[in-house]
Amino acid sequence: MPAGPLAIVAGAGRFPLEVAEAATANGYHVRLVGIAGSADPEIERFPHVWVKLGELGKLYKQLHAWECQDLVIVGAVTRPHMSEIKFDIGALSSLPDLTRLLKGGDDGVLGGIVSFLEARGYRVHGILDVAPDLAAREGRLGAVPVDASAERLITYGADLLTALAPFDVGQGAVVMDGRAIAVEGIEGTDAMLERVAALRASGRLRVKGRIGVLVKAPKRGQNMKVDLPTIGVRTIEKALEAQLAGIAIAAQGVLIADRASTVRAADEGGLFLYGMPSKARGLDRS
Amino acid sequence: MPAGPLAIVAGAGRFPLEVAEAATANGYHVRLVGIAGSADPEIERFPHVWVKLGELGKLYKQLHAWECQDLVIVGAVTRPHMSEIKFDIGALSSLPDLTRLLKGGDDGVLGGIVSFLEARGYRVHGILDVAPDLAAREGRLGAVPVDASAERLITYGADLLTALAPFDVGQGAVVMDGRAIAVEGIEGTDAMLERVAALRASGRLRVKGRIGVLVKAPKRGQNMKVDLPTIGVRTIEKALEAQLAGIAIAAQGVLIADRASTVRAADEGGLFLYGMPSKARGLDRS
Repeated sequence: MPAGPLAIVAGAGRFPLEVAEAATANGYHVRLVGIAGSADPEIERFPHVWVKLGELGKLYKQLHAWECQDLVIVGAVTRPHMSEIKFDIGALSSLPDLTRLLKGGDDGVLGGIVSFLEARGYRVHGILDVAPDLAAREGRLGAVPVDASAERLITYGADLLTALAPFDVGQGAVVMDGRAIAVEGIEGTDAMLERVAALRASGRLRVKGRIGVLVKAPKRGQNMKVDLPTIGVRTIEKALEAQLAGIAIAAQGVLIADRASTVRAADEGGLFLYGMPSKARGLDRS
Repeated sequence: MPAGPLAIVAGAGRFPLEVAEAATANGYHVRLVGIAGSADPEIERFPHVWVKLGELGKLYKQLHAWECQDLVIVGAVTRPHMSEIKFDIGALSSLPDLTRLLKGGDDGVLGGIVSFLEARGYRVHGILDVAPDLAAREGRLGAVPVDASAERLITYGADLLTALAPFDVGQGAVVMDGRAIAVEGIEGTDAMLERVAALRASGRLRVKGRIGVLVKAPKRGQNMKVDLPTIGVRTIEKALEAQLAGIAIAAQGVLIADRASTVRAADEGGLFLYGMPSKARGLDRS
C-alpha cells in the first residue's frame, strides 16, 4: 500500500473503472488519468485528469500535484503512430526514449512504458497487486460444471498454450474433439471466436451442438503489469455465438472484467467457466 | 513402380491433374477417379471414371476392371455428413467401417480412408512417392533472395511450427518483427493471409512496406499419403495482398502446385520463396 494516492492510467473500456472501485475497496486512494479519446467519460466519478497522448508534461505535473508516485495502467491502448502524437513541452526531454519505445512490438511498447515510467521514479504496479479479487480463481467459476471429456480437452488446450508460451503470440485457442480449431494471433480472442462461428456457419467446420472450449492464458514472460489477458461479457457472447461448451482460463493469470455480469452471462448461456490451476497449464513442466 | 496402372483419386482443384502429368512423366500408367462434384472435369483427358461419395461398389469394380491395386489420393475433400452420402450396394459390406471413419477428425477421416483401402488390399502411395518433383527443394526457390533478417525470422517461425507440431492444428504462421501475427487453424493458409491483410488494412497491425514471412510445414505425424500441405499461385496472391516479404516452406514436406506459375508469380511480386531444410525446422531436435 503506497503512502500517497494510486494513479490509474485509464485506456479504453469499463475495466479501468472496475479496477478503481476494487482498489478503493482495498483501501487505495485512487486518482484517474484518462487517456483522451480512449477512456470512458465515467472516470470523472473519481478525482481525475484527462491527458492526450504526448502530454507527458501535463501528466508529470498532475502526478506531482497529487503527490502520487504509484501507478497502474489499465485498458487497451492501440499503438499510436509517432505522427499522431503531439508532444507537450514537458515531454521533450523524454523524446529520444519515447521514440525508441514506440518502435517496439506491442509487448515492447507496453513493457517500454513501464520501464520508461520506472526510470522516472514512479512505481508501476500490476492490476493484480492492487485488485487481486479481479483474477480468476482455480476450479469451477460459474454454475455449469465441467464434464470429464471437457477436462481432457482443457488439458490438451493448456498443453498447446504451454507450447506456444515461449513465442510472442496471443495466448488463446479453441480446441474441440482433440484438435485445435483456431489459434489466436494479434487479432485477439473475440476475432478468433468470430472465426470459429464463421467456420461453423459456412460448413467448413461440421460439428453439431455445443462443443469445444476456449482456453486462454498469459504468455510466458508476459508483462503482468500492463498486459493481463482478460475475459468479460463480450467474450461470453462470442463463445456462445461459436457454440462452445465452455471457457477455461489460467487461474491467477487471466482477469474477469465485470465478474458478476460475466459469470451470469455464462450461467444463463449454459457455458462452463473454469480456472485452470498452474499444473494443468503445464507451467511446472517448463 | 506398380505392375498395373496407378489410380489417382481426384478431389477438388487442378492439382490432381498435375500429379497425373508428373506421374505419367515418371512412367506411371495413370487412371483418374473423379469425385463427382469436386474434381475438375479436365480429368477426362485421362482414362477415368466418375464416382459419387458412397459409390464404393462402383469404385471397386472399376479398379478391378483396370487391374489396378495402387492409388494416390489428391485434392481437398470436405468432410461429408453421413446423410449426404448415398451408399451403393457394393459399399454395404463396408458400412460399419465407413461410419466409424466418418466420425473422426479431418486427419482421422483422411488417415482412415488410407487404412480402409489398405485393409481391402490396395496400396495407397503418397504424392511424393509418385511425383517427387512436386515437392519444394531446399534453399532459394525463386529469383528473390532471402536477406539475413528474414533468415532469423524464418528460424523463429520454424521453431514456432515445431512447437505446434505435436498438436492437430494447421501448420502455418505469419511471423514479423520477432513475433507471430497469425497462426493457422482449420481456416487454412489463404484465410490466415486474408486475416493479416485485414489487420493491416484496419490499422490493427501497423507496419509499413513489405514485411513478414509465411512459414508452412507439415504437422508431425501428418499423413503424407493424403494430406500434404501445398502452396500455389493463390498462396502467392494472398501473401502479396498481406504485403509479406516472403514464404518459407518445409523442403520435401510442402508441395508447390503449378510450380512454374507459382514461382513466376512470386518473382514478379518480389516475394522470396525458400525451402527450409529439416534442420531449420528443428525436426532433428524433437
